[in-house]
Amino acid sequence: MRTVAVVLAGGAGLRLGGELPKQLQLLAGRTLLEHSVTAFEQAPGVDDIIAVMPAAFVEAAAQILGDRYGKLRRIIAGGADRPGSTRSAIDLLSKEPPGIELERPAPALGEPDCNVLFHDAARPLVDQRIIADCVAALAEHEALGVVVPTADTIVQLAGGTMVSIPPRESLGRCQTPQGFRLSVLRRAYELAADDLEAGAFTATDDCGLVLRYLPEVPVRAVTGSERNLKITYPGDFRIAESLLLSPGS
Amino acid sequence: MRTVAVVLAGGAGLRLGGELPKQLQLLAGRTLLEHSVTAFEQAPGVDDIIAVMPAAFVEAAAQILGDRYGKLRRIIAGGADRPGSTRSAIDLLSKEPPGIELERPAPALGEPDCNVLFHDAARPLVDQRIIADCVAALAEHEALGVVVPTADTIVQLAGGTMVSIPPRESLGRCQTPQGFRLSVLRRAYELAADDLEAGAFTATDDCGLVLRYLPEVPVRAVTGSERNLKITYPGDFRIAESLLLSPGS
Repeated sequence: MRTVAVVLAGGAGLRLGGELPKQLQLLAGRTLLEHSVTAFEQAPGVDDIIAVMPAAFVEAAAQILGDRYGKLRRIIAGGADRPGSTRSAIDLLSKEPPGIELERPAPALGEPDCNVLFHDAARPLVDQRIIADCVAALAEHEALGVVVPTADTIVQLAGGTMVSIPPRESLGRCQTPQGFRLSVLRRAYELAADDLEAGAFTATDDCGLVLRYLPEVPVRAVTGSERNLKITYPGDFRIAESLLLSPGS
Repeated sequence: MRTVAVVLAGGAGLRLGGELPKQLQLLAGRTLLEHSVTAFEQAPGVDDIIAVMPAAFVEAAAQILGDRYGKLRRIIAGGADRPGSTRSAIDLLSKEPPGIELERPAPALGEPDCNVLFHDAARPLVDQRIIADCVAALAEHEALGVVVPTADTIVQLAGGTMVSIPPRESLGRCQTPQGFRLSVLRRAYELAADDLEAGAFTATDDCGLVLRYLPEVPVRAVTGSERNLKITYPGDFRIAESLLLSPGS
């Protein structure tokens, strides 16, 4: 079964300021988008890459990425939010909607099923160990998320009062990639869409969607790393650059 | 009822390296210890301050703090760990064990009860708004902790599998101060000590101790701030210094 990496770069990244969305800003001389695409290009277990951009930046991304990535199949326009962008990728992999044709070998379309790794372009330091562990986990599991331990003590709250302090080892902070059998995630989105029509849908992330709508599908936790940080604020670029320069995995 | 601030600076701070424990390292020209003691000295609702140091650094702390703090009553040696240090402060406030006498007015000892705010010296940027809110909350509540929202998506785990993704607003990251009616916290520690003899004790923080051993006592959540960060790694000093220089509460 093929494994497709979907680099989610569809956000406007407004919190960072600047003229360009976050994923096209430079980290150590390359855009965040290039860092993530490079990581999946180099991953032996990944067959195809799809990048999801804001519609206004699909052309810019095509120019930036050029023809350096042999696994890059499509650059498509995302939706209004992250679930919308995920849906765009699911639709592409299910029935090939419009995208920019890059004159490359045909993608893993039309196959009965495939594995999909969704990765947030705001996490440019994802490493080969994490990707390999995700690919390996998808051989046995139909859904997974990358998780790191919580550094802080987390408390459960209800109405301004503490309810409990769960044991720290029972909690994790979600990173990406999140990985799924395509058919499983598509089914979760279909059930969520029914709920949306019924007004009961609450947006959550894709692992949360599977947990909620397909409780019979175990969602595996793959161990991430502190290096795989999410760039949210301008200062995070400096932190990421110092991590890039420091030794370690 | 008097309110006593206990600045917990009893840790070795080994993760930071250096010759001095973290709480005696400099941030913008003053030790972390001084930053926290100053904050409580300036807080109108706080009557007394006690500092808890590693035994080897009690004298050093006395020299550093000097006689600049009118509310500082004692500098005492902490225990082997954080609960041990908290216990040292509880014991002092309950029956006056040895400490360095600073020739100051008698502390709030021997009174039937008092309010205690435990603050981690690794959080030097605690501000007056947070302290005032804690003091105000202790007028109505017997236990409280300072909490900020979680920036990350948190997942509940069991055996390498995701169990659920609780709604983000139902979770908080614990900061300090944590505040208690002295008699309530002492009772929780007594019950925990019984459990320790029975081998069932699991170390946790003081709010967790009250939640576990005195479930009938509501623990109030007081809203903290992102500025009230914990200095853990060397780079955190730079972040804290830039926060000190930036405008805001």
